[in-house]
Amino acid sequence: MIHPDIFQLHPLPATLDREVALRCITECLDCIAGCTACADDCLAEPDLSDMVRCVRLDLDCADICNATVRAITRQTMPDLRVIRSVVEACEVACQACAEECEHHAAMHEHCRLCAQLCRRCEQACADLLATLG
Amino acid sequence: MIHPDIFQLHPLPATLDREVALRCITECLDCIAGCTACADDCLAEPDLSDMVRCVRLDLDCADICNATVRAITRQTMPDLRVIRSVVEACEVACQACAEECEHHAAMHEHCRLCAQLCRRCEQACADLLATLG
Amino acid sequence: MIHPDIFQLHPLPATLDREVALRCITECLDCIAGCTACADDCLAEPDLSDMVRCVRLDLDCADICNATVRAITRQTMPDLRVIRSVVEACEVACQACAEECEHHAAMHEHCRLCAQLCRRCEQACADLLATLG
Amino acid sequence: MIHPDIFQLHPLPATLDREVALRCITECLDCIAGCTACADDCLAEPDLSDMVRCVRLDLDCADICNATVRAITRQTMPDLRVIRSVVEACEVACQACAEECEHHAAMHEHCRLCAQLCRRCEQACADLLATLG
Repeated sequence: MIHPDIFQLHPLPATLDREVALRCITECLDCIAGCTACADDCLAEPDLSDMVRCVRLDLDCADICNATVRAITRQTMPDLRVIRSVVEACEVACQACAEECEHHAAMHEHCRLCAQLCRRCEQACADLLATLG
Repeated sequence: MIHPDIFQLHPLPATLDREVALRCITECLDCIAGCTACADDCLAEPDLSDMVRCVRLDLDCADICNATVRAITRQTMPDLRVIRSVVEACEVACQACAEECEHHAAMHEHCRLCAQLCRRCEQACADLLATLG
Repeated sequence: MIHPDIFQLHPLPATLDREVALRCITECLDCIAGCTACADDCLAEPDLSDMVRCVRLDLDCADICNATVRAITRQTMPDLRVIRSVVEACEVACQACAEECEHHAAMHEHCRLCAQLCRRCEQACADLLATLG
Repeated sequence: MIHPDIFQLHPLPATLDREVALRCITECLDCIAGCTACADDCLAEPDLSDMVRCVRLDLDCADICNATVRAITRQTMPDLRVIRSVVEACEVACQACAEECEHHAAMHEHCRLCAQLCRRCEQACADLLATLG
């Protein structure tokens, strides 16, 4: 992984705590990949009709993580109200998706793993929010 | 425009107020287009060094509007905490981008117009949030 | 809609034909909205198991239209190989999604309308490619 | 990283070579992160006016990688024409961005690293295309 170095190389002093922001970036990227895959795995399950809410929340979570990872990667002249509100939305989306995936974790291993990724991303968002005061 | 009809044709009863959600969808799409164009117009301006924050907030705003329009377009089994938090983030991003663009409105017509789009999207988000209680 | 004006206001001479590019931008935005809504409408249909391929191609089409609309909106120093290849991918994605939606058009009005949006976007992409030589 | 396991757990037999597709997924995610950071690093450079094309191609590359990673992550009933065309667009976008970043590699370490990420993603796209015949 090279992208953490590019993030560290930003020419200006950091507004966000770079270690904490970088962990949030990494968790968001993993969560996008996991939720996109879980939504698609669900579409191929025989019990698809039970998985509809899971598909829907996976899609929401991937889309919101995508906006979040882009916003927190940008270090040039951020508006902290924007950063705070999108990271809050990401935390909520990860929590909602994790809760739904946990309902299916015993039946579907992809849901069990996706829930783990969502919980880690939720925590990384909470940690980043804590640094923002 | 056909897409409002597809939105109206959803097989299940609506959770969100469809008129208000549809206006928010339309404003988000216009705002994505406007912010993407304004960021790029800024990159071609002779006073680019004064426009850096504008580029940055345009990019944030387009990305957050993109997540929002997808989440509110989906009517199947939404989690209202997720909807509320992403629409709140969108309202904040539109407000921040509008404020910045308004600083440059006298110099750059694209900023003046982009600010208008952001203010309309901000209002549409506020109206949708008002229906969510 | 203000965003066409912002697009027209770009400080530098146009590389793409602005009328044709603008029509492609508008069709891509409509297609994103239509495909996102159609995928979600499908998730709420009683015959969901027959709609899985439609959901999948709707999602692909919305994602590829999203990359395309952003790339063609940017007028500052484009690489025409990039523009050409992403517009080609968009044309292919719209065609594939339209074909699938047309299979369900008699059963599902949202598929009939989504197919129309995809066909219009496919044509707008073809028209833009024709101007690129 | 858990997401490779979710990808491997898809309920149906694979259409794409899973090892090769997974490498392309991983490279696309790294490239999104790297290009988003490089574009933003450029915005903070004193020689920003020389970096405008780099910003623009970084943004295109991140957007096209984003559509690509989503399309190739989905394994349910793909249309191979769509997969092929979006991976081709990704290869082209990575190549164009790498070329531009390489021009600035001696001056800007973030460009040198971003070019590496783009070249790796370009190769992963080429490898995936080779498996598609």
